Parts: sequence; structure tokens; C-alpha cells
Amino acid sequence: MSAYTLGRLAEALGATLHGDASQLVRGVAPLESAGPEEVSFVTGAKYHRLAAASAAGALVVGPETEDLDRPLLRVTSPQAALIALLRLFHPEPPVEPGVHPAACVAAGAHVDPTAAVAAGAVVERDAVIGPRTSVGALSYVGRGAVLGADVRLYPRVVVRDGVRLGDRVIVHPGAVLGADGFGYAFDGAAHQKIPQVGGLIIEDDVEIGANTTIDRATLGATIVRRGTKIDNLVQIGHNCDIGEHVILVGQVGVSGSCKIGRRAVLAGQVGVADHVTIGEGAILMAQAGVAGDIPPGEVWTGYPARPASQTRRIWVAEAMLPELLKRVRSLEKQVRELGGLAR
Amino acid sequence: MSAYTLGRLAEALGATLHGDASQLVRGVAPLESAGPEEVSFVTGAKYHRLAAASAAGALVVGPETEDLDRPLLRVTSPQAALIALLRLFHPEPPVEPGVHPAACVAAGAHVDPTAAVAAGAVVERDAVIGPRTSVGALSYVGRGAVLGADVRLYPRVVVRDGVRLGDRVIVHPGAVLGADGFGYAFDGAAHQKIPQVGGLIIEDDVEIGANTTIDRATLGATIVRRGTKIDNLVQIGHNCDIGEHVILVGQVGVSGSCKIGRRAVLAGQVGVADHVTIGEGAILMAQAGVAGDIPPGEVWTGYPARPASQTRRIWVAEAMLPELLKRVRSLEKQVRELGGLAR
Amino acid sequence: MSAYTLGRLAEALGATLHGDASQLVRGVAPLESAGPEEVSFVTGAKYHRLAAASAAGALVVGPETEDLDRPLLRVTSPQAALIALLRLFHPEPPVEPGVHPAACVAAGAHVDPTAAVAAGAVVERDAVIGPRTSVGALSYVGRGAVLGADVRLYPRVVVRDGVRLGDRVIVHPGAVLGADGFGYAFDGAAHQKIPQVGGLIIEDDVEIGANTTIDRATLGATIVRRGTKIDNLVQIGHNCDIGEHVILVGQVGVSGSCKIGRRAVLAGQVGVADHVTIGEGAILMAQAGVAGDIPPGEVWTGYPARPASQTRRIWVAEAMLPELLKRVRSLEKQVRELGGLAR
Repeated sequence: MSAYTLGRLAEALGATLHGDASQLVRGVAPLESAGPEEVSFVTGAKYHRLAAASAAGALVVGPETEDLDRPLLRVTSPQAALIALLRLFHPEPPVEPGVHPAACVAAGAHVDPTAAVAAGAVVERDAVIGPRTSVGALSYVGRGAVLGADVRLYPRVVVRDGVRLGDRVIVHPGAVLGADGFGYAFDGAAHQKIPQVGGLIIEDDVEIGANTTIDRATLGATIVRRGTKIDNLVQIGHNCDIGEHVILVGQVGVSGSCKIGRRAVLAGQVGVADHVTIGEGAILMAQAGVAGDIPPGEVWTGYPARPASQTRRIWVAEAMLPELLKRVRSLEKQVRELGGLAR
Repeated sequence: MSAYTLGRLAEALGATLHGDASQLVRGVAPLESAGPEEVSFVTGAKYHRLAAASAAGALVVGPETEDLDRPLLRVTSPQAALIALLRLFHPEPPVEPGVHPAACVAAGAHVDPTAAVAAGAVVERDAVIGPRTSVGALSYVGRGAVLGADVRLYPRVVVRDGVRLGDRVIVHPGAVLGADGFGYAFDGAAHQKIPQVGGLIIEDDVEIGANTTIDRATLGATIVRRGTKIDNLVQIGHNCDIGEHVILVGQVGVSGSCKIGRRAVLAGQVGVADHVTIGEGAILMAQAGVAGDIPPGEVWTGYPARPASQTRRIWVAEAMLPELLKRVRSLEKQVRELGGLAR
Repeated sequence: MSAYTLGRLAEALGATLHGDASQLVRGVAPLESAGPEEVSFVTGAKYHRLAAASAAGALVVGPETEDLDRPLLRVTSPQAALIALLRLFHPEPPVEPGVHPAACVAAGAHVDPTAAVAAGAVVERDAVIGPRTSVGALSYVGRGAVLGADVRLYPRVVVRDGVRLGDRVIVHPGAVLGADGFGYAFDGAAHQKIPQVGGLIIEDDVEIGANTTIDRATLGATIVRRGTKIDNLVQIGHNCDIGEHVILVGQVGVSGSCKIGRRAVLAGQVGVADHVTIGEGAILMAQAGVAGDIPPGEVWTGYPARPASQTRRIWVAEAMLPELLKRVRSLEKQVRELGGLAR
């Protein structure tokens, strides 16, 4: 493990250093576990108490954090500084170019000389593996699939035939890109498969979680636009158009032909029915069940999904529902009695 | 890409042609994107406006669609015609028989001479691979597993030991067939595993989505009956009996020992508790949570699941619940006052 | 298939035999399908009628089951006896030590001479494979990962770099252990990835289902403590601490930094928001949506999750909600009329 002086770290982070520039730091750790040779970070006011109690040798803080009795690296954005620190202490190993002897690359596949294909990977003919791209062990790249530059397929990814990935795409183990969409026509006796002959396009800087599945289109192409981040075990149906910089959290399910606007956020286990449009910047909270369009910028939740403020009022009210039944019963009795009195 | 005349297409689809039989068509495309050398299709009245605006060179329409200002292929079922068209323009490449040199087939496995085993696949001893069946790259077929004729395992499928697949079964990447069921007995100190020694039977014409998991039985066999179609990331527990022509949409979870009647439909993310029976033709709408039996032919939804009409009334009413609380409070006040007046 | 006398079975199970000790039994089967040469089991009073009708040649029963007209093996715990019986009739095949010639073990990996590495598996450098541990076909063990003794990786498992598994861990096909956690910081233009440099520790006797994903920590380690059993398609986020002997049923989703107390049970499709603490022995029923801490020993359900008794009252009451609206409307009318009368 490498070590850096605080002076060197301040320089790397563009931070103002309060403390001894020659002090050595050997790693990054959370406030709770950091020791005197580690740097930790305070990403918000709610961590100030933890910071005061931490044994960390130095702290990365934002402009609003007051002075603490230890060396501080003051930055504009502690989160950005944390990312820089982690990259500094844990650099990505460079891609070692070359096709492993235990990989299986078909004649007629094009593997860039700076790319890596790991043991057990299978690359079919007419596939293109771009510069510095790494195909993980036991991964599969289908016929005519195209991977851009600096793509990272972790072990055991499937990229089916004709799927196109842009640059800097990261795909975690077990993800399946471009399997058939789920489409059948019932002919009175059986479900007849509608051939799924469309494609799948993953744009630049998309990250796709472990065991996530994104289907190819029936016709045309399913598309995941640049900068979008997808967690594990997410399902995206055929012909979806997932906008830029969208966040899809674990176990989200998006049915076919949905359109999700840029910067929308779908929290864990959200389900979206087919042909739904989610507006730009909309937020769907965990487990929401969405059957209709969501306007841009709104926060919705619940099953069925409604604007979050409305859902929260319903959730508060439904807790009073059993008691409400009693109150109505009591009212009915009183009104009956009053009716007798009044007559 | 191949090209066909409208006359040839009319013949292939059994369609009545309104237009020039010699006109060439080079592909199939949706109404929105089809160009003058492509054929598109109108599968329902709601697409008529889109059809009128489409640049498609020809349209496949049903009996009820009125004439449009371009060549028409009139058929009884536009959906069936679409399937035929897609097969015509995108024929499945034939299975290239043979075991790839980078596959690993154990001595004592039986691979039909017309079957294909792709690079990186592993086939264990006593496994049987039927005629024209294709085992995808990096797939695993366990000891004594049996695959019928014309089965297609996409890359990276797991068929565990002893699992039996019928004919024309399609399994998408990442699916796991026949993993252990989830069964333990707590002995006061720890959960003791109940050995899962049963089997899994997948009948003819079943299709299984990417990363879906279907468990083997504790004893006896889990069974998925013929014609059933299963989407991605679905979980089916041990000892289930999934009827014929059932539809299980993405991320559905079916607990152990359930019985699902033929032609039932479980929409996305539906969850079913163990030992539940779903009647023939029943429909469970998305995200429904099912803890008890569902009668045949009924449509249920909600959490907890209830008949859909009832759930919909509840959903409408619960939106009025916060206001209802106020109305009851107001009633209570009025009744108190009336009580004073009446006394 | 082996055969045992009832006398031998009584001995193996520590059972009291009522019947002919020399009678032969050739297998174990459920009450419904067991034949005269099979033994079945009665694990509770609700199965007595089924037991009476069963054709089983002998029955394993508990202390409370009354005599039946056939040979009985009476034991303290029929469930424990069932496990013993299944192990007797279906012994695990012993691990055949050795590295398969079609496996790929990097120089610098340490594989115990009693361990097995199957065809197509890839083991990276500095990985440690413990005694009698078996790495399934097409599985991947990353750099520096450590597998203890008697571990079983089924085919096509991914254990990423540095992940540590204790002894007797079982991992089913498609599981992904130690993929990156889902963490980003939005910098105003794009989501910047927070490097996920922490680890993942799986303690002794944990079992992990097919296609389940457990993420490594951002810093520190995600931990799954000993004896915990995890079903298929479960997602566990970064930095979670899953206690001992916990049960996570299929498709459960646990967000980052959650702490789940020992012996807690999360039923199918439960979702837990990040940073939540679930108390020891708490039970979350199927599909519950949990956004806050759950006290030890309590049973919660619903969306949003509430104590089960409260949720059940709400579920009963909400079924009466549409009718309640009518009753309130009627009350309002009557009160208006009474107001007129009283004035």
C-alpha cells in the first residue's frame, strides 16, 4: 500500500491544508474505523460528532465544517475529494493487453491490440473489441457485437449478437445484454414467439450491475443513454429508451417500450408497466408501482404510485382507518338516537 | 439482407394484396421508422393514425382496417403475419452440428450428431443432448441431464444434474435450472439443510428468460408444463407445478409447492406465497401479493391481492381517505352540537 | 439406489421401531407418492389424514402421532430424521480432488491438494482454495479471494477479488459475490463513480442461492455472518452486516449499510431501505417495504411496513373503505336533515 504526505494530498485534491504537510497517510477509512495513519472524510453536518470522536489522522472537510483538533484538508466538495482519494490509494490496475491462451476468439473478430480478453472468454466472429477494453474471464461477446474504448466487462458477462456498447461502459458479472424481449401472440392454442430481431445500444459511461438483464428490441433498438447507472438484478424490457444520467436502483423492473427521462431516479424494486413515460428528473421512491406516465421533476411513490405527498397523507390516514370505522359506527348510533329524539 | 416482392409476401402470408405485386420490400419496421422499402403492420385500430402518417412502403392490415393510400397486405391476423414476416426476413441461422474444440464434453455424455455444443460449454457424463439441439457457449449441462430435440440453450445457461428438458425449449443466458430448493429445519442452534434430491422437468415449447431461476424439488419434481413462457429474473421455488401456456412476466416470484393453472398470467413482480393454487386462466396484475388461492378465470391485484374490481375501488377510496378523516371530524362536531340542541 | 432394512434405519435415526426390522426400504418419498418400498414422514398433525391414506411402506413420526396400521419409526424430531434419511439415501458424492485439465488456475494461486477445480473454472493469482473445497465448472475465483474448507461453489459462480469465504459455504450457480457497490456522487454534470475498494466476508455455513448478488463494501467490508441462508435472486448492498442464522427468502432486496440482527427472517420480495437496522429475531413478511428500523422480535408487514397486527387491521378495514365512504355520505345527509329539524 502506498503512502502520501498531507502536503501531497492537499496538492492532489486542490485542498487547503490545516496541519503538518509532512505527516504521512497510508490509506482512506470511514470515520468509525480510521486510525492515526489514515485519512477520513466528513461529507455532511450530520457526521460532525462522529468526526470529533474519530481516531483518523486527518480529515477531508467541506467549507462549512468548523475547525477540529486535527489536520484538515479543506475542499469545496468532500465527495469529489473522496473519489480522488480512493483513486489515489486504490488505482485501477492497467489493462494488460492480449488474448489469454484459454480465451476463444473467433476468426473474423476484431480485437484491438491494446485490448484484453481474459481466460475462458468467448468472442464470436465480426465482434469488435475497442482500444484498452477488457473482456472478463468467462464472458461472451456475440457475433457482430461492438465494444467501444475503455469498456470493462467483468467476468461472466453476456453481450449478445449485434449489441453495441459505447466507451467507458462498465458491466458487472452476470449481466445479460441483449437477450430476447418477451413477446408472444396467442393463436388460440399456444403462445407464438414474436421474433426479437432488434438491437440494444448502450451509450458511453453507462454502468450496469451484476445479474441485470437488458433486452434487445423486437424491431429497432432498446437504448440506454450516456451516463446512466444501473444497479444489480434490474430488468429492462424490449424497446425501452432510458435517458441520460438516469439512476435505476437494485431490482427495478421496467416493462417494454418505456421512456425514462434524463436524470430520473427509480429507487429499489420499483416496477413500471409497459409504454409508460417517466418525465425528466422524476423520482420514484422504493417499491412504487407505476402504471401511467409521471410528469417531469415530480416525486411519486406508493402502490399504485401517486405523488409522494399524497401517498404519505394516505399512509398516515390508513393507520387511523380501523379507529375511523369505530368512530363512524358510533356516529351512526348517535345519529339514530338523535333522529329518535328529534322526531 | 434479403428482398421480397409484395407478390411473394402475399403468397407467404396468405394475404390479399392491394397494390403492385412486383414492388420490392427489403425489411420489416415499426410504423414510426419504416421507410419506402420496408413493410410495416397495423395490429389494431389504435394504430390507424400512425399508419396513415407512416412512410412504410406497404402495410400488413387486418380485415377491419379501411383502405389506405398505399399497398396493403390484408390478412386475418396481422400479429400472426408479423411473426411470419419476421421469420422470413430474419431466419434463424441453422444449428451447425458438432462439438466445438474448446467445449468440454465428458466421456459418457451422449451428444446427438446433429446437435451443437459451443465453445466453453461443459457437458457432464450421462447427459443427453438431443437432435438439432444447441448448447450455447459457456453453458453447463449437469450429469444425467436430458435435453430433447431442437432445444436452444443460449450462452451461459446452467442445467443442473438430472434436469429434463423437452423439445423446442429455449433458455436465455444466465438462467439456472435445477438449483437446490430453499429448505431448512432449525434445530435450536442452526438451520439444517434439507437435502434437495428431487428433479426438475421442463416440458416442450417452454421459453425461459435471462437470469431466471427454477429450483429442483425436495423430493419428486418441480414441473413447468408445455408452452409456458417465462420472462427474465423470475424465481420459481421447489416442487411448483406450473401449468401449460402460463405467462410469468419479469421478476415474478413463486414460492415453493405452488400450483399454477394453465393459461394463468402473472404480471411483473407478482409474488406468490408457498402452497398457493392459482386457478386456470387467472390473471394477477403487476406487483400483486398473493397469499391464498385464486379462483379460475379471475383477475386479481393489489397487496394483499383481491379481485381487481375490489382493489380498484379501494384504490379510489383511499385517495379520499385524508379528506374523509376531516369529514368525520366535522360530523362528530356537528353531532355533538345537535346532541346539545336536542337535549 | 441403495436399500436399507427398517432395523438399520431405526439405528441410523435413533428411532423406536414399531414393525418388522427386516423389512426393506429403497427410498424416501412424500406421503402422496410413496410406495410400499419407500419410507415417508409425518412432520405435523395436519398430515395425519394424508399419512393414513398413504401407500408408504413405513412412516417416520414424532412423539405425538398416534399409531397407524403400518411400520413406524418414532423419533423426537421427524424433520431432523427426514434430513438424516435423505442424506442416507442420497449421499453427496465425495469431492474428486484435482484441477481439471480444462480449468485455468493462475500461477501463484494456492489450490489445496484435496480440493477440486472443475472444467472451465478460472482461478486467479493469489487465490486460496481450501481443503476439500470444490470450485464448480465455469466458476471464477478472483485475485486474492480465499475459500475455506469444504466450500462448494456450484457451476458458474463469481467470487471477485479479495472476497473471503469461511468453511462449508455453499454457493449456487450464477451468484455474484463481491461486485462493486452502487455508489456515485453527482458533480452537476454526471454521476461520478465512488470506487468500491472494500471487501466481502462470508462466514462459515452460509448458503447463497442462484443468481443472488452480494456487493463488496465501499470501504471496510460487507459481512454475512455464520449460518445465514440466502435464497435465489436476492440483492445485498454494500457495507451491509447480515447477522448469524438469518433467513433471506427469494428476491429480497437489502440496500446499502443495513444491519440485520441474528435469526431475523425476511420473506420473499421484502425490500429494505439503506442504513436500516432490523432487530434480532424480527420477521418481515413477504413484500414488506421497510424504510425504518425494526425492533427485535417483532413481526412486521405491509407497504409501508408496520407491525403485522396493525397492518392486518388496516387490510381488513380498507376492504370496507368504499362502503365506509357511502356510510359517511349518508351520515352527512342525515345530520343536515337533523340540523334542519333541530333548528
